[in-house]
Amino acid sequence: MATLSPGYSITVRVEAPTDPAATARLSGVVAEAGGAVTALDVAESHPTSIVVDVSCNASDVAHADTITKAIEALDGFTVRKVSDRTFLMHLGGKIEVTPKIELKHRDDLSRAYTPGVARVCLAIAENPDDVRRLTIKRNTVAVVTDGSAVLGLGNIGPAAALPVMEGKVALFKRFAGVDAWPVCLDTQDADEIVQVVKAIAPVYGGINLEDISAPRCFDIERRLRAELDIPVFHDDQHGTAIVVLAALINALRVVGKKIEDVRIVVSGTGAAGSAIIQLLHQQGATNIIGCDKDGVVHEAGPHDGATRHWLVAHTNLERRTGTLLDVLPGADVFIGVSAPDLLAGSDVARMADQAIVFALANPVPEIDPFDAQQHAAVVATGRSDFPNQINNVLAFPGLFRGLLDGGLRDITDVMLSAAANAIADRVAPEELNASYIIPSVFDSSVAPAVAQAVRHAETAAQDSELAC
Amino acid sequence: MATLSPGYSITVRVEAPTDPAATARLSGVVAEAGGAVTALDVAESHPTSIVVDVSCNASDVAHADTITKAIEALDGFTVRKVSDRTFLMHLGGKIEVTPKIELKHRDDLSRAYTPGVARVCLAIAENPDDVRRLTIKRNTVAVVTDGSAVLGLGNIGPAAALPVMEGKVALFKRFAGVDAWPVCLDTQDADEIVQVVKAIAPVYGGINLEDISAPRCFDIERRLRAELDIPVFHDDQHGTAIVVLAALINALRVVGKKIEDVRIVVSGTGAAGSAIIQLLHQQGATNIIGCDKDGVVHEAGPHDGATRHWLVAHTNLERRTGTLLDVLPGADVFIGVSAPDLLAGSDVARMADQAIVFALANPVPEIDPFDAQQHAAVVATGRSDFPNQINNVLAFPGLFRGLLDGGLRDITDVMLSAAANAIADRVAPEELNASYIIPSVFDSSVAPAVAQAVRHAETAAQDSELAC
Repeated sequence: MATLSPGYSITVRVEAPTDPAATARLSGVVAEAGGAVTALDVAESHPTSIVVDVSCNASDVAHADTITKAIEALDGFTVRKVSDRTFLMHLGGKIEVTPKIELKHRDDLSRAYTPGVARVCLAIAENPDDVRRLTIKRNTVAVVTDGSAVLGLGNIGPAAALPVMEGKVALFKRFAGVDAWPVCLDTQDADEIVQVVKAIAPVYGGINLEDISAPRCFDIERRLRAELDIPVFHDDQHGTAIVVLAALINALRVVGKKIEDVRIVVSGTGAAGSAIIQLLHQQGATNIIGCDKDGVVHEAGPHDGATRHWLVAHTNLERRTGTLLDVLPGADVFIGVSAPDLLAGSDVARMADQAIVFALANPVPEIDPFDAQQHAAVVATGRSDFPNQINNVLAFPGLFRGLLDGGLRDITDVMLSAAANAIADRVAPEELNASYIIPSVFDSSVAPAVAQAVRHAETAAQDSELAC
Repeated sequence: MATLSPGYSITVRVEAPTDPAATARLSGVVAEAGGAVTALDVAESHPTSIVVDVSCNASDVAHADTITKAIEALDGFTVRKVSDRTFLMHLGGKIEVTPKIELKHRDDLSRAYTPGVARVCLAIAENPDDVRRLTIKRNTVAVVTDGSAVLGLGNIGPAAALPVMEGKVALFKRFAGVDAWPVCLDTQDADEIVQVVKAIAPVYGGINLEDISAPRCFDIERRLRAELDIPVFHDDQHGTAIVVLAALINALRVVGKKIEDVRIVVSGTGAAGSAIIQLLHQQGATNIIGCDKDGVVHEAGPHDGATRHWLVAHTNLERRTGTLLDVLPGADVFIGVSAPDLLAGSDVARMADQAIVFALANPVPEIDPFDAQQHAAVVATGRSDFPNQINNVLAFPGLFRGLLDGGLRDITDVMLSAAANAIADRVAPEELNASYIIPSVFDSSVAPAVAQAVRHAETAAQDSELAC
């Protein structure tokens, strides 16, 4: 059965009879049609009719339509209007820009704007570091996309990507007090993206690249890191890698295995897959095999980029060939960041005992998680309707909080690993089990812990440099 | 005497004796040093001393220092700390990005972000016009600068320009509910500025160019207007021109002259001066003479741009030569957007009877306005400590409010003129006199009136197109 989601939630305004059982008939028909009623309000009452707003979750657009039709078919009931609660939430956008200062009278204006502001400008012109003290720079992050790989929707362009970027901005503020801003670029040329991001950088204390397709994202990130004096982070790569590593640390604790010893198969070697493999390697994993749509990664071609060459050099040391299904038997860990429905339960059954399965393709995972649960010891997905959701919101807000507060310029692998361990450690030993390997996204202790870990990793790195 | 300004306001924390006359001595010494006490708070009280926070306005940094030293010299008083209230207001920046939606629980997240947001993205991908309905675009303006001509400070670069742009963003929200965002570009190359602004445009419903030096600003604005499908406005040009025209309309009413009949001398033919001349011409002024640092504008060179050629073709029809002082005698109107202290009272005395003087150079006008008042019928400046302040904040918030609400793509001269008339008409006939030719910046009826005028001008233009 398809899952009911608040992402497909409608409110149907219905004119109904006044008899006492009318609302029960309404709820009943929604339930019969497979919907879940979440609210029922009588909006108007008349001598011979009442107007009822019934809100319910559906599984998709077609299902919402089915529910509406079922209500319409009820004798004596008339559907007046159907509101899509998701669209209502997005109307007019989800973020706004607000002054932090009062502008009530002339004195406020004279200090915030001319003539007072001139002295603040001059102070920054004389001492450029003051821009972090006297402007928004120290708390502001650009969320940059070209709309080329948005969610699982593909290349939908910069305007259609804006609702996601606004959501990301809202999450930055909600979870870590970071002021972020959507930058949706009307170009997909890597050189131009680098040029534009460099040009707009003075306002920002960090750059969060988002939903830019591989392999361009690798090149863009590498060049921006080299050329900017603020941290640059591609969330689809490193944010995902941090949360996957956090979940894997705890999953391995559950099954009593060590990362050094396990054989890990990663399906998908795009932005997320490549970054996951690199971070797991950095964390001590020795036996990783990457697969993509062409099968097991075992050689690089002359036109492949640096990331592909790294993968060939550091994974699949036995130089196996074939497909995902050829290398999965006997593996301890499967991590999928690829495509829907690649595996059946029987494939998981052929993995090692106490297997770990992270099926993260969105919205439809590589394997139905309920099937995977029959054969694996620990199962995680990207879905919000299943335990162990691998959600980047556990990583990026706290990570940037730490980077901004520390005035840090570079993001190191040590920081990513420290962030992952901080997230993993928010699950206390007595809480840890196969259904709880990762903290809730609403656990407000996660972002501060990640921020602290990032800053500590930087301090530790500086200390070790000094010790050299 | 130099003017005391809240832009140079300090709070001095002083340890003082407990005798009843101590605070009076403190206030007295500040007044003797030329400061104006705006607040006096006893912050702490001890058996043998009190700690007093005395806030006062000074005229500049040196004056603030003089006041502090005078307090220190008082017997029995010790200065603990001096806070600059302008800098305090700017600490950490003046704006923030705030979610308009609640993100309290899982259902919120599912609608605002994944999986619900995907449907919103697809709706925009399928119907690009929906971006104005389902995102921030319809209420959002980019405030774009390259830091090349910031206030009167010159080319201080993008980072040092940020406090001004943040202030502008705050004004947009405060006066018209527009969400603006600072875009401070780390390039001063006109081609690159055009390219970058085009690349970031998908998020915005309008572009406000700010503090970009002439003549590059003309070219950048013209090209962006041609290539973007959202309105592009250079505030230093057209914002200033709107408010100058508004003030002139009312000043001419005060002196009983008509714009068609007066001789107008404009000092400064940069961004503001050129736009003022063009708008006055559009409004019916027939006799305008422009002057710049090389004297009266009477011919264009082969390497001058389109704006200079327009000026030569449409102004100074008598082809006069010489300097500002050569053409000012007999003029009805002087408008200065140029440099400090160009004129003396005697120069104004040689203008026509009932002369109008707008001395708008900032922070020091072309002529001391108190001197000008001795000989002119109406005097206006850009200063906040003198009547008739020509302040762009009267124009740009309402203008963009109208453009955004109307979903308008182009800004026409008719709109600029309509905006100016709307501002002028906010001064009722019974209010109009030589000291009140322009409404207060805090008059909350101005922005809605400007917005309505802009939308009406567009509708009128469409109607006249249809009539052709």
